[in-house]
Amino acid sequence: MLHVVNSEFLTLTYGALVTQMLRDFENVDDVNKQLERIGYNMGMRLIEDFLARTSAPRCLEMRETADRIQQAFRIYLSVQPTISNWSAASDEFSLLFDSNPLTEFVELPTDLSNLRYSAILSGCIRGALEMVQLEVQCWFVQDQLKGDNVTELRVKFVRRLEEAIPAGED
Amino acid sequence: MLHVVNSEFLTLTYGALVTQMLRDFENVDDVNKQLERIGYNMGMRLIEDFLARTSAPRCLEMRETADRIQQAFRIYLSVQPTISNWSAASDEFSLLFDSNPLTEFVELPTDLSNLRYSAILSGCIRGALEMVQLEVQCWFVQDQLKGDNVTELRVKFVRRLEEAIPAGED
Repeated sequence: MLHVVNSEFLTLTYGALVTQMLRDFENVDDVNKQLERIGYNMGMRLIEDFLARTSAPRCLEMRETADRIQQAFRIYLSVQPTISNWSAASDEFSLLFDSNPLTEFVELPTDLSNLRYSAILSGCIRGALEMVQLEVQCWFVQDQLKGDNVTELRVKFVRRLEEAIPAGED
Repeated sequence: MLHVVNSEFLTLTYGALVTQMLRDFENVDDVNKQLERIGYNMGMRLIEDFLARTSAPRCLEMRETADRIQQAFRIYLSVQPTISNWSAASDEFSLLFDSNPLTEFVELPTDLSNLRYSAILSGCIRGALEMVQLEVQCWFVQDQLKGDNVTELRVKFVRRLEEAIPAGED
């Protein structure tokens, strides 16, 4: 990674992507799925850069994972979500965002109230973690775009994945 | 504008937009046109932020315009193109880029050799300048994605546009 860019350029580029998706797909659920899928693929790419950049060792428990996700948001989007609302079993937490660079100056028309505009972010988390053998669910609980005070992204541990065994070594 | 973001996130987001366009349109020429159009709309938005941020007065000649475009690339994409290759009449110049944050890690397959991957940039310039009553042409002369040593974006003055006269004041 060579440099940082102004978030406004990203905001508008992402807005163009969402707009294009809304043109392409008949219903908003499909747009949500596609944005999530795009994010998933991005996450699978970004994790390599993240690991190279941070030399982070493997997370042994979800509290470490939460810290790394927080760190990734700081690196890639210059926002620092607060980690909170841990479940009793420590397998589920929330990331609370005061601001979201993807949605600056964005206003959703009322007929798009089901659009998960920032679905790319939950997809990114899911894709990145899957590359390090961690399956999670990730979804928006609150969203400033929908009038909530904060944007809340929930992450829930599902399971550890088996390491892929290279062909010929099983 | 609140903050800067890591260019890798932008690179991947823009890549997703181009990929989506390639799925949507039958031929590459249409993709080029659409990317340019998206950039044009972005430029019309970015110029407001640029003018507010820089308090720049109106450009009286193209050499000033070139400096402002250079400044805008520095602000929004953290790259500083070199201004060169002025025409004798000083109505045409090139922006030379050593690197382009939109194309980091991007490789074009050979069947997409006609794709103007970064067409959003020429669109941005055209859209932004049109908002300040300056019509230009803007096109890629060289592109590192196509194997050239630099990426060269050419800007040519076409004409000054009439100020729109508010209704009732003509």
